[in-house]
Amino acid sequence: MRKKAVSLISGGLDSCVASYIAKDKGYDVFGISFRYGQRHEKEIDCSKKIVKSLNAKEHKIIDIDFNQFGKTSLLKSSSVEIEYHRLNNIGNQIPTTYVPYRNTVFLSISMSYAESIDADSIFIGVNSIDYSGYPDCRPEFIDAFQKMANLASKKSIEGKKIKIKTPLINLKKYEIIKIGSRLNIPFEETWSCYRGKEKSCGHCDSCLLRLKGFKEAKLKDPLQYEFLPKWYTI
Amino acid sequence: MRKKAVSLISGGLDSCVASYIAKDKGYDVFGISFRYGQRHEKEIDCSKKIVKSLNAKEHKIIDIDFNQFGKTSLLKSSSVEIEYHRLNNIGNQIPTTYVPYRNTVFLSISMSYAESIDADSIFIGVNSIDYSGYPDCRPEFIDAFQKMANLASKKSIEGKKIKIKTPLINLKKYEIIKIGSRLNIPFEETWSCYRGKEKSCGHCDSCLLRLKGFKEAKLKDPLQYEFLPKWYTI
Repeated sequence: MRKKAVSLISGGLDSCVASYIAKDKGYDVFGISFRYGQRHEKEIDCSKKIVKSLNAKEHKIIDIDFNQFGKTSLLKSSSVEIEYHRLNNIGNQIPTTYVPYRNTVFLSISMSYAESIDADSIFIGVNSIDYSGYPDCRPEFIDAFQKMANLASKKSIEGKKIKIKTPLINLKKYEIIKIGSRLNIPFEETWSCYRGKEKSCGHCDSCLLRLKGFKEAKLKDPLQYEFLPKWYTI
Repeated sequence: MRKKAVSLISGGLDSCVASYIAKDKGYDVFGISFRYGQRHEKEIDCSKKIVKSLNAKEHKIIDIDFNQFGKTSLLKSSSVEIEYHRLNNIGNQIPTTYVPYRNTVFLSISMSYAESIDADSIFIGVNSIDYSGYPDCRPEFIDAFQKMANLASKKSIEGKKIKIKTPLINLKKYEIIKIGSRLNIPFEETWSCYRGKEKSCGHCDSCLLRLKGFKEAKLKDPLQYEFLPKWYTI
C-alpha cells in the first residue's frame, strides 16, 4: 500500500511545489485548503486546479473564520490596506498581512485530518528565506509544533507519529521555482498576489518575491501582471 | 486597565469552573466556544448561559467542521455508538469519543483570538485526574503547546507571551466541584452528558465522572438524570 501524505495547498506557488514533491516521493496526496476569510476566492480556485493536476486522492476545504477576530490586511473584514513594499524591505518587519497563529491553526486541523486517514506525513510549503517574515514559517516553530503534536494524539502516543515535512524551508525562491519547473508544476494555476484582482498586482510582497524568484531562476512567469518592476527582465 | 483572559467554554462543568476562576482572579473574561460537529447543540446553549452568568465581555462561537474527517462517536456524522462504561474502566483506554487533535485545534484558534484582543492568558479546564483518557488533556501536552505557541506569533516573539492557565489540571473532580460551589457557579446550566437528550443519561463516562464528583464533594447535582447508578447517594 502506498504511503499517504496530507498536503496543505494554499493555491500559491510554494505549496504547489511542496505537494508535487510529496507526489514525486511516492505518496498518495490528500489535499487540504482553508477558506479563512481571505479577501478573495482566487486562492481556493487555484487550489482546486492544483489538486486536479496533481491527481490528489481527496481535497478537503475547511472553513474557519478568522474574520471573527482578525485585524490584518489579508482578511476581507479589514480596513487596513495591503502595503506596497520595496524588495529590500521585505522580511525586515512582520507585515500587516500577518494573521495571528494562522499556520498553527492550519497545521492543527491538518494533523486531525492526517490521523483520521492514517497518513504518515504532512507536507507544508513554508519557507524562511525568501519570505514575508511570518514567525510561523521558521524551522524553530515547526520543530516545536512537531514536539507538541507528538504528545497530542492517540496514535502519536501509541507510537505512530505524523511527521511534518517542510521540503522548501531553507530554499531560496529561485531554487523552489527550479524544482517546480523540473516537476512540471502548473505555474499558471498558482496564485501569489495578496490582492485578488484579475491580474497580479506586481507591487505586493508576494508578487515581488515571486518575480524575483523567476528572474533568478531564469524562467518566465506565465502569470499576467498589472505592473512589472523595472528590474524584472528575462 | 483590567487584565484580559480568553476562556474556553464548552458548556461543561470543568470549563465553567475554570472561567469563574479567571473572573475570581480579576480578569475580564472573553469566552470562546466551538461548534465542531457535535451530536447536539446542548453544549452551545449551555455555553451561552454560562457566558451570561459570568458577565463575560464577549463570546465568540467558532464553527469548525470535524465531521469532514471525524470517525468518533461524539460527532453527528458518526455511526459509532457512545459506549456504556463502568466507572472503574474510565481512563484505561482512549474512548470512541476521542476527536483527534481537538484541544490542539481549539487552543490554536484561542491563541489567535487572544492575540487579537491583547489578552495575556488563556484559561482551559483540562483535567488529567478524573478524565476520559484523552492525551491532549495532560500537563506534558499543555507544556509542549505553550513552548510552540511562544514561537508562533508576532507578539510572542516580541516578548508578549500568552500564558495557558490550567487551574484544574491536577484536581480531582470533587475538588473542582467544591471550588465551583465556593464560586457560586450555575451547576444547573452546565452540561456533561455525551448524549444530548432532555435529561442526562447517567451511563456515559462524562455522567459517571460528574456524579462521582458530586457524591465525593457531598453535594447534590441539580441536573435531571434518566438513570442514576446505585452508588450515587447524597
